Amino acid sequence: MNPYGIAIHGGAGTISKAKMNKWKTQAYYEALKHAYSLGYQVLRRGGKATDAVIEAVIVLEDSHLFNAGKGSVFTHEGKNEMDAAIMDGKKLRAGGVAAVQFVKNPVKLAEIIMHKSRHVLLSGDQALEYAKKHELQIKDAEYFYDEFRYKQLQRALTSDKTTLDHDEGADRKFGTVGAVALDKRGNLAAATSTGGMTNKKYGRIGDSPLIGLGTYANNETCAISCTGHGEYYMRGVVAYDVSARMEYLGETLQEATNYVIHEKLVKLGGRGGLIGIDQTGKVVLPFNTKGMYRGVKLSDGTELASIF
Amino acid sequence: MNPYGIAIHGGAGTISKAKMNKWKTQAYYEALKHAYSLGYQVLRRGGKATDAVIEAVIVLEDSHLFNAGKGSVFTHEGKNEMDAAIMDGKKLRAGGVAAVQFVKNPVKLAEIIMHKSRHVLLSGDQALEYAKKHELQIKDAEYFYDEFRYKQLQRALTSDKTTLDHDEGADRKFGTVGAVALDKRGNLAAATSTGGMTNKKYGRIGDSPLIGLGTYANNETCAISCTGHGEYYMRGVVAYDVSARMEYLGETLQEATNYVIHEKLVKLGGRGGLIGIDQTGKVVLPFNTKGMYRGVKLSDGTELASIF
Repeated sequence: MNPYGIAIHGGAGTISKAKMNKWKTQAYYEALKHAYSLGYQVLRRGGKATDAVIEAVIVLEDSHLFNAGKGSVFTHEGKNEMDAAIMDGKKLRAGGVAAVQFVKNPVKLAEIIMHKSRHVLLSGDQALEYAKKHELQIKDAEYFYDEFRYKQLQRALTSDKTTLDHDEGADRKFGTVGAVALDKRGNLAAATSTGGMTNKKYGRIGDSPLIGLGTYANNETCAISCTGHGEYYMRGVVAYDVSARMEYLGETLQEATNYVIHEKLVKLGGRGGLIGIDQTGKVVLPFNTKGMYRGVKLSDGTELASIF
Repeated sequence: MNPYGIAIHGGAGTISKAKMNKWKTQAYYEALKHAYSLGYQVLRRGGKATDAVIEAVIVLEDSHLFNAGKGSVFTHEGKNEMDAAIMDGKKLRAGGVAAVQFVKNPVKLAEIIMHKSRHVLLSGDQALEYAKKHELQIKDAEYFYDEFRYKQLQRALTSDKTTLDHDEGADRKFGTVGAVALDKRGNLAAATSTGGMTNKKYGRIGDSPLIGLGTYANNETCAISCTGHGEYYMRGVVAYDVSARMEYLGETLQEATNYVIHEKLVKLGGRGGLIGIDQTGKVVLPFNTKGMYRGVKLSDGTELASIF
């Protein structure tokens, strides 16, 4: 039997154990399990890796716990501008969306762009028009409103700092969600979705929707979804660099990701993590922060949901 | 004496010799020479590679001949939405701007983002606000209006095709401008600027403003600026791939770019070219189209302006 499986993340950062009471911790674990379980079911039934990562990311986008979809943080202007991308490792096809508002599931929009658009990356209000044209679910601002997120913005506005989701005080976390999967046919896929940074200005776009930077998949090497301080992931071309090291240096997924997260990114000054899977079903979940919300379910029986 | 020099491009494509009369050809040569000469002067005086590529790209942005700045093509909605990026190979710092209107020199905006913003990539109307805050030159729609470009849009609207600048009929050309430079201190830099595709829709962003995709510089390897069908350059992570092959496979700049442009990109179905320079002052100008507007001036006396 061919191996298959899925890994997901819900963001990395200085997640404070002190601030995580029993109920809150439980809620995160439940959401992570729900997400990878739905993705895994797609794979078990013989479905595509692309469909599995979309199923999993939708669960995380629909949860208020994570900085993506419903749980997206506020920009400086008090808006929710979201980024997402998907890549299919079989044909190196990809779709991404940047700075889009009101779309319930940006990862679905990225998928439609991959399948139906001549373009790879759409942005802004016009990307919203594209979502409407393709009858994706649109939600009003109230759907995305969250008191915690709003207070986060007010604090950030006072200090005029951009904050990387919970990246403040004792609870620093880079808010992104993502999934990588290997299906029974040996195809790899990766998807990432985010609400970006609290108090971000000027239409900032991070690494998440950018192919090769925050999201990458190639059947010859690996599927990668990143979470962290996006600007450093962009300058380091992180997702593709893992693939390049595997292809050109013959490194394993583990060797390549260890180097990129624990050496290259650290040298640049960047913090965060990533999830990766290769064609043998080997999964890696490296991060150079205190924690990363993550989960794994593989056809060999491996199952994991973890935060610290 | 340390070698130094600059290479520039003004787009690649099926440039028709039949349509290029003597005067038109002369105008392109003059513009190319003007651009690389100004960039070269910066280097000769001991200036920085980043300043040299900016000087050269500004000349090309200010010319109506190229699809960037003043000469930008029209989007589906009849707007001029421009993308640009710059990268400094010394510290791997970078700045980019996507889908911005009315900024006379998007490459200058990319530079200011690199130096003054916490972010790497800004987009849309909010990027215009950022440009105004930093007192960059803003021009009205009339400045960017060009009858040829407008007719190009009308033809594209009729057929509802996106066209890659002059990518229609007998005069197919991918409209982008860019420059790469090596300065006397051994620092590399790359910059790219474009008006994108005629009749582009939904806030499409191409490869030009994206670090590692259309633009990349790293003192350890090379500086690259791409021009071509952006979607394929994004899926191929083209600019960084050249650097990765040099770093990981030990290929020369020529070997790496030959592979990427003439094998990898062709296999994906993508057309276009790129310009590159390494720390020894070696320049490459590969393209898999019929022509590419290009120019070179190096400290060893090499000087070239060419189209076909």
